[in-house]
Amino acid sequence: MKKLLELLKEKKFKDLRIHISTLHAPDIAEAMAEVSQKESLLIFRLLPKDLAVEVFSHMEPSYQVEFSQLINEDELKELVNELNFDDKIDYLEEIPANLVKKILQNTPENERRLINQFLNYPEYSAGSIMTIEFVDLKKRMTVREAINRIRKIGVDKETIYTCYVTDNERKLEGIISLKELILSSEDSKVEAIMNKEFISVETHDNQEDVADKFLKYDLLAMPVVDSENRLVGIITVDDIMDVMEEETTKDFHMMAGMQISEESYLESTVAGLFKKRFPWLAVLMISATFTSAIMEHYQALIASMAILSANIPMLMGTSGNAGAQASTLMVRSIAVGDVEFRDLFSIIWKELRVSFLIGLSLAFLNFIRMYIIGNYTFLLSFVVSLTLIATITLAKLIGSALPMFAKRIGLDPAIMANPMISTILDALVLITYFTITSLFFHF
Amino acid sequence: MKKLLELLKEKKFKDLRIHISTLHAPDIAEAMAEVSQKESLLIFRLLPKDLAVEVFSHMEPSYQVEFSQLINEDELKELVNELNFDDKIDYLEEIPANLVKKILQNTPENERRLINQFLNYPEYSAGSIMTIEFVDLKKRMTVREAINRIRKIGVDKETIYTCYVTDNERKLEGIISLKELILSSEDSKVEAIMNKEFISVETHDNQEDVADKFLKYDLLAMPVVDSENRLVGIITVDDIMDVMEEETTKDFHMMAGMQISEESYLESTVAGLFKKRFPWLAVLMISATFTSAIMEHYQALIASMAILSANIPMLMGTSGNAGAQASTLMVRSIAVGDVEFRDLFSIIWKELRVSFLIGLSLAFLNFIRMYIIGNYTFLLSFVVSLTLIATITLAKLIGSALPMFAKRIGLDPAIMANPMISTILDALVLITYFTITSLFFHF
Repeated sequence: MKKLLELLKEKKFKDLRIHISTLHAPDIAEAMAEVSQKESLLIFRLLPKDLAVEVFSHMEPSYQVEFSQLINEDELKELVNELNFDDKIDYLEEIPANLVKKILQNTPENERRLINQFLNYPEYSAGSIMTIEFVDLKKRMTVREAINRIRKIGVDKETIYTCYVTDNERKLEGIISLKELILSSEDSKVEAIMNKEFISVETHDNQEDVADKFLKYDLLAMPVVDSENRLVGIITVDDIMDVMEEETTKDFHMMAGMQISEESYLESTVAGLFKKRFPWLAVLMISATFTSAIMEHYQALIASMAILSANIPMLMGTSGNAGAQASTLMVRSIAVGDVEFRDLFSIIWKELRVSFLIGLSLAFLNFIRMYIIGNYTFLLSFVVSLTLIATITLAKLIGSALPMFAKRIGLDPAIMANPMISTILDALVLITYFTITSLFFHF
Repeated sequence: MKKLLELLKEKKFKDLRIHISTLHAPDIAEAMAEVSQKESLLIFRLLPKDLAVEVFSHMEPSYQVEFSQLINEDELKELVNELNFDDKIDYLEEIPANLVKKILQNTPENERRLINQFLNYPEYSAGSIMTIEFVDLKKRMTVREAINRIRKIGVDKETIYTCYVTDNERKLEGIISLKELILSSEDSKVEAIMNKEFISVETHDNQEDVADKFLKYDLLAMPVVDSENRLVGIITVDDIMDVMEEETTKDFHMMAGMQISEESYLESTVAGLFKKRFPWLAVLMISATFTSAIMEHYQALIASMAILSANIPMLMGTSGNAGAQASTLMVRSIAVGDVEFRDLFSIIWKELRVSFLIGLSLAFLNFIRMYIIGNYTFLLSFVVSLTLIATITLAKLIGSALPMFAKRIGLDPAIMANPMISTILDALVLITYFTITSLFFHF
């Protein structure tokens, strides 16, 4: 990429053309996003047509939109026309409806109808990530005929490594891999070697569930069928890797109390980031009013014994951290399918024991810190340590149980985000602390 | 799977044998882990040999170890012998050294040496996830010869869809896909169609970087070479999906201040969970002593104006949440390659604007809550709102900058976990709050 930028600066266009043809499309797309619009257009015009299409499909969505305003309408139409079907849908989803209309105006009626159907699949559904470019075979074919068909139609297909056997009504009857075809005798029938126990999904299934199946069954491609088992598309593993990354980002953002967006950080505007972050912060701040109310309630106690308040930040922080550990572990365990709702009691029992051990150890450490190293009285050191045991146990129980209940009632467990749990815990910590204090100091 | 368990309970072993052969290996492995040891052994003995090997390779590592104690040593040896090379390495890594020795005692010397070499690759390196079962071709071959070679040796290979062209010293000269072979004329030379500009990794490269390359270049397999460019193995996309999931889990755990482990939740012991969680909690609790010291310092102030302390939990909570948003966004943006260290200043500038907007809006809300709805004085409501603006700006700046600095000095950005940042912020919030209060109330 360095060399590309150098040649570009030195205006050695002949060398540049040769150099570019040795590069990979994703690298060229990356370079184009970094140079000026003029230079980016220059690079693009040096590309052989096939490579240009591939480069375009590897651009970030927002850059695709930006770039398509640099080229003229005819160039754009030609480019979009050459895109793989799924890349075409992805691009058309990004641009305004009137531009979609313009681009599709010379597209044959039946393809246009298909494109509109695909544009209407809900976001994050299997339908929204599938493509129609697959190899279909018939079960009466011999292996030789099947391979000949692959040779004939394979060049434009998203994959030729998994082929789909359909009947005359497009119903999916079996799946056969190119490996099985290549390793079988040429006179065998497709029917005899195809796999009838295949894994498939429906158009409206969630993309996250599709990704789980790829992971579990080590698939390279998966058929998508409609409610009547007719084959409508396939999903390939490269798109699933993108889904996995997207879903991870969604989980991370949700767990930190942010709304989901697909923009990369540097592309996001200040207003966009504000909108993503403000709502949860506001909700949680207002919920935190509850903690102020508790503190106000114990104002007299604090006034008469200000030293009491000195340990509140430590108690809240430590419990918050303990709760975050439990909730994060649980959200992730649910996401990878390690635990289910029926495991709730064994989880609670385990967390009880772990949190008691942790609480006891931290309480011991804290007692040393307060009574032996610090200047606190025995009683206060004891009360704070006791509170620590109680609040850590609470934190672990709530942190692990809430994501399970969220999942149970159909919410994303990640919504029981660390911020939410720590806000709940802050209130509980204060109540526990003041209750225990009142018991021992007899107010 | 329900049907399998039913047939098992009704002891209809004949039907069970037929039913099992229609199931997928991962489902059978899952079922075996759920039933009793006796039943699991029974299912296993009903499996055709090939399927048995596949089922074993799909078991969770800890269950593999458990299960291999149920079968006798000869069965185990045979089973392990039949495993794919990478699955074999994964299994041998899990079991005690003396059992490895026993299992390998009849293995030929050269294979044993190879296995030992693979067992020695560092954890999380490319070498630790690669396999040796690839198809190698020579550049002088015709396409026909190449396809014949694939037919001859392909059955045991991890993939036949990407083939590797090596010279006599095993140096990698090019890559060719089965698609290119199938779509080319049979008399073409491999040399003419192979891809010389291939993406490869070295044995000691980190698996996370390997996964990034799969994602960027949409690969199905990638060659692993040694320092002299000799082909030593390949990595396939199914293993990379596992790596992606593993790395995501590592990031989640690190961000919640837990040590990494590969055990699933339900498999983890109480002691194991304790060891994972205690160290960070203890470190952070002791760091939180700093907050106690600040509170002690302002004890007189709090005693004379106990109502001051009522807003501390809200201030710390809200700033902590704001910091968590920024740090999570940044850790994830670094992980997916969206931002780099050179973007630091543009990030700080963006965060400054976003946090000012958010701080201002939250301060406004808070002022209404305290002065208009609540019973606070104008001055205190104002002071708390002002503190909110200052601490949210601090939180966003620290939350976004610390992960970048961690990355810069070679640490995992996720180590600048939310717990770490919220502990730092707690102290800063207190200092800010008391400083501003002292200014306005003239203590």
